[in-house]
Amino acid sequence: MHRRTLPLSQVYRLLEPGPVVLLSTARAGRPNVMTMSWHTMMEFEPPLVGCVVSNRNYSFDLLRSTRECALNVPSADLADKVVACGNASGRDIDKFAAFGVTAITASHIAAPLVGECFASLECKVVDTRLVRAYNFFILEVVKAWIDPARKDAPTLHHRGMGRFMVGGKTITLPSRMK
Amino acid sequence: MHRRTLPLSQVYRLLEPGPVVLLSTARAGRPNVMTMSWHTMMEFEPPLVGCVVSNRNYSFDLLRSTRECALNVPSADLADKVVACGNASGRDIDKFAAFGVTAITASHIAAPLVGECFASLECKVVDTRLVRAYNFFILEVVKAWIDPARKDAPTLHHRGMGRFMVGGKTITLPSRMK
Repeated sequence: MHRRTLPLSQVYRLLEPGPVVLLSTARAGRPNVMTMSWHTMMEFEPPLVGCVVSNRNYSFDLLRSTRECALNVPSADLADKVVACGNASGRDIDKFAAFGVTAITASHIAAPLVGECFASLECKVVDTRLVRAYNFFILEVVKAWIDPARKDAPTLHHRGMGRFMVGGKTITLPSRMK
Repeated sequence: MHRRTLPLSQVYRLLEPGPVVLLSTARAGRPNVMTMSWHTMMEFEPPLVGCVVSNRNYSFDLLRSTRECALNVPSADLADKVVACGNASGRDIDKFAAFGVTAITASHIAAPLVGECFASLECKVVDTRLVRAYNFFILEVVKAWIDPARKDAPTLHHRGMGRFMVGGKTITLPSRMK
């Protein structure tokens, strides 16, 4: 897959629409990946992202201890892998191996990127004040990648209980909002 | 419009897909409404929602002082009103009057609901720890409303600079994620 750098000032355009993302971590050379929908932009540049990672998830300990992760944006055609990663725990299996997900070396973090995703954001944890109360981590995106050939790929949006909305057409309106 | 109560346990299904929402507030009987995309679920039940409301926005002072708001979910056919509310400030005009938006009396809060939206969440601010650092408010949804005839209406998803993704079809997958 061809990747190019995405300017950090444009990261919000990926996450604002609310796509399901794959959060990838690693500790002691062993990678893990989980499915996540509870995230929001918090600042444009440097891009800050808030997200909830439940302390019942294996990724919670990895994220808290390594303070690094990648947020990878899957297109809708990866739905089967997205669901598989959400249905299993890294405590039990290596999800990369089990589900045919490709771990790509990142540039600024030890956690891998997910090769099949059309965009990946390398992140460092910058604020843990609300981790104890809400499992809420604040991440700074330090490097962003996108596949320019697939930048408008339809995304997946979780509606709960097995239902996912697939992103539809894009319209342009006379908005002055950034 | 016909409204019925939406169980609080199902609120996450509205907000997880990442729709643009209209945040409505009121102070001294004067309502305001702004367009917002920086929000995330933080807990299932009672539903907690985290959101960024910039301190440059008129709504910031209203939300901080009254500690109440509604999050209203517009369908894509309201795009013109959504953009109009995002392009103007409540400091200058009454957006409800200017843009033909209907203020509906809420049941648990003084802020109005937006009558044209197919779902509305009455919210109270429950945590302001990250307001100073990030303009980040944590809301508890205390009452939720939905129009059952339009519960699957396509939503709007902000992609920046005038571009909005319109929600597409819903697919069902063998996911065990809540």
